[in-house]
Amino acid sequence: MELTELIRSAAKKLETPFLVIDTNYVKENYSKLRNSIKNVEIFYAVKANSHISILETLRDLGSSFDVASKGEIIKLMDLGISTKKISFGNTIKKEVDIKFAWDNGVEYFAIDSEMEVEKIARNAPGAKVYGRLSMSSNDSDWPLSGKFGTDADHLIEILKYAKRKGLKPYGVSFHVGSQSYNKYKWKEAILNASEVFEKLHKEKIDLKMLNLGGGIPVKHTKPVPEVEEIGEIINESINEYLGWVKGLRVLSEPGRSMVGNAGIIASRVLLRSRKGTQNWVFLDTGVFHGLMETIENFRYEIMVEGKENAETINMTLAGPTCDSVDTIYDEVELPINIEYNDIVYIMNTGAYTSEYATNFNGIEPIKVYTITELEKLIQDEYVLVEEKI
Amino acid sequence: MELTELIRSAAKKLETPFLVIDTNYVKENYSKLRNSIKNVEIFYAVKANSHISILETLRDLGSSFDVASKGEIIKLMDLGISTKKISFGNTIKKEVDIKFAWDNGVEYFAIDSEMEVEKIARNAPGAKVYGRLSMSSNDSDWPLSGKFGTDADHLIEILKYAKRKGLKPYGVSFHVGSQSYNKYKWKEAILNASEVFEKLHKEKIDLKMLNLGGGIPVKHTKPVPEVEEIGEIINESINEYLGWVKGLRVLSEPGRSMVGNAGIIASRVLLRSRKGTQNWVFLDTGVFHGLMETIENFRYEIMVEGKENAETINMTLAGPTCDSVDTIYDEVELPINIEYNDIVYIMNTGAYTSEYATNFNGIEPIKVYTITELEKLIQDEYVLVEEKI
Repeated sequence: MELTELIRSAAKKLETPFLVIDTNYVKENYSKLRNSIKNVEIFYAVKANSHISILETLRDLGSSFDVASKGEIIKLMDLGISTKKISFGNTIKKEVDIKFAWDNGVEYFAIDSEMEVEKIARNAPGAKVYGRLSMSSNDSDWPLSGKFGTDADHLIEILKYAKRKGLKPYGVSFHVGSQSYNKYKWKEAILNASEVFEKLHKEKIDLKMLNLGGGIPVKHTKPVPEVEEIGEIINESINEYLGWVKGLRVLSEPGRSMVGNAGIIASRVLLRSRKGTQNWVFLDTGVFHGLMETIENFRYEIMVEGKENAETINMTLAGPTCDSVDTIYDEVELPINIEYNDIVYIMNTGAYTSEYATNFNGIEPIKVYTITELEKLIQDEYVLVEEKI
Repeated sequence: MELTELIRSAAKKLETPFLVIDTNYVKENYSKLRNSIKNVEIFYAVKANSHISILETLRDLGSSFDVASKGEIIKLMDLGISTKKISFGNTIKKEVDIKFAWDNGVEYFAIDSEMEVEKIARNAPGAKVYGRLSMSSNDSDWPLSGKFGTDADHLIEILKYAKRKGLKPYGVSFHVGSQSYNKYKWKEAILNASEVFEKLHKEKIDLKMLNLGGGIPVKHTKPVPEVEEIGEIINESINEYLGWVKGLRVLSEPGRSMVGNAGIIASRVLLRSRKGTQNWVFLDTGVFHGLMETIENFRYEIMVEGKENAETINMTLAGPTCDSVDTIYDEVELPINIEYNDIVYIMNTGAYTSEYATNFNGIEPIKVYTITELEKLIQDEYVLVEEKI
């Protein structure tokens, strides 16, 4: 997302830290993804950022939604979103949540274990279930190989078990890993998924849905494949491996790629100090107030207001809390002349930031503004200043 | 904390997860610490658990408080706690927070850098400042060596600078690292602190306060030194190295050791599955909803209701969210017969649990009940059942 004059001006006038969201980027991301994958149905992964402005924007574009809990379903229903457009993609659901979802019209449920089949059979009899394949995802920032999904043979058994339990085996999902750098991972995953389609077809179980999961990367500090390139690989692979499936539905569950570049965090330097030979810079936001993903060294681009072209040196960047875990980067290049009260922008922080924020240390979770709210706030403050005079 | 019949019974009847707090343990911890360190003044580290029942209990015992932010100061003031009993221990403060604290009567401020001195001088002229010494703390679960404090020579310069800026150099603090296993660390730290006292005394700056920080460990899965043993070392060391300081005030900032053993989390198994050869167990709480400290492999004792004596095997324990980071332990011994809906207690989780909880995945932060609330809730439910009949 571009660092506009409005954002720079707001950062100077308003209390930091805050995350600003520009939903125009969400619209653009939505349209790009729709144009890149043939007939794709987009189920936005609400967990990436559940801010109402984002959900409303996607609702108005006709998007569907992937949810993780009853709490997210209620939030969508409150925005007038039909439960027919909701898929319950968490493979670890509470029974009460399954029942709530089914009773309110949610039709699709993810599974990757026998026990989850039993829970769904008890609470959502006749529901459509899709099985999640595991992957070896070494080319992503957040490999998800361990916790979710299972191998093709096991998944086939699970989907057959679901049928015996009165559920409708409906499709296969996978996730190449969040922020995946290797576009050929999708080809490998679709090939694996096609094996499940084929083997079950031979047993007269016809799956109808391929769920591509998320994983489309957002540009931060490393080069990433474009969504169009990834789409091309996906279209070719579906054609090659699943072209024989009649009426195949293709779903995508973008989270980061839908909102990651739609946000910028504005923060300020609270302290600069030296410890031994190392320079430390402390911001008014950190791991517990928006930058949780940095604990595993996820790298955001950082810009310091007015010092965009300054010489940089290696420093340690940390957050404002009394907790050593609240260290953003042990080593990062920052302007040699960075100083107290400088405004620091953390770029493309629309995904997985405000959602992870806590109240730790008595410090409030990061504030979130839309561009429209920001415009209004700046104007209000202007009026306030006028009145004082 | 003991797993009582009340807690077991509540876990069976109420929705999980929840954290139950028994303030009797807080009272006992307070009294033990007071009896172990001669003339110690206790400044409870609010960040460990800011639940009102804990703050009220400590207030009524006459405790003082260590805070990290304006938010915590306001919370304490709202409970009728005098700002004279508050120390602002965060070395990375917002200027507006410093001003708020000073204007409301807070007298003590922590420093470990020149810039923090300047911020305090601008907003709290004449305040008492204490300098934080860094430590090499390799014998603790959470070494804090990097982010906080500085070496003795630098600290002496900073305290002299504070004096030139019109502040009152008042003392030295350190932190041996949270959950410190080596009781001799306190001896080393007090020796280091005494060097600052001595050198400044020669320059006619007489410090009055030794702040021992936190770090007193809570028993989880490894043996820990008792607070009485640690107190003995501390008393001897103060006598040996600082016996010459007239009117020395000795402060302690316990967090974990005041509340860690005053809480138990009750949760339930949402799913058990196999991935390859590994058994996975998923709970209804996890890293983002109370168990944040496990991301760096902090080890809690785990008990499964009714299966306390069962044979155990190595499993992976994870939380309920769609996030691979939400894996509690990659490897942990759990009962071989653990199954769906089993109640799982995570012991001694009174500190640094609910404070780190998020709303991630649309799942609410973990509920917190006092023992009294738990008693009432169970009774209410009983009445409800009666009425139904």
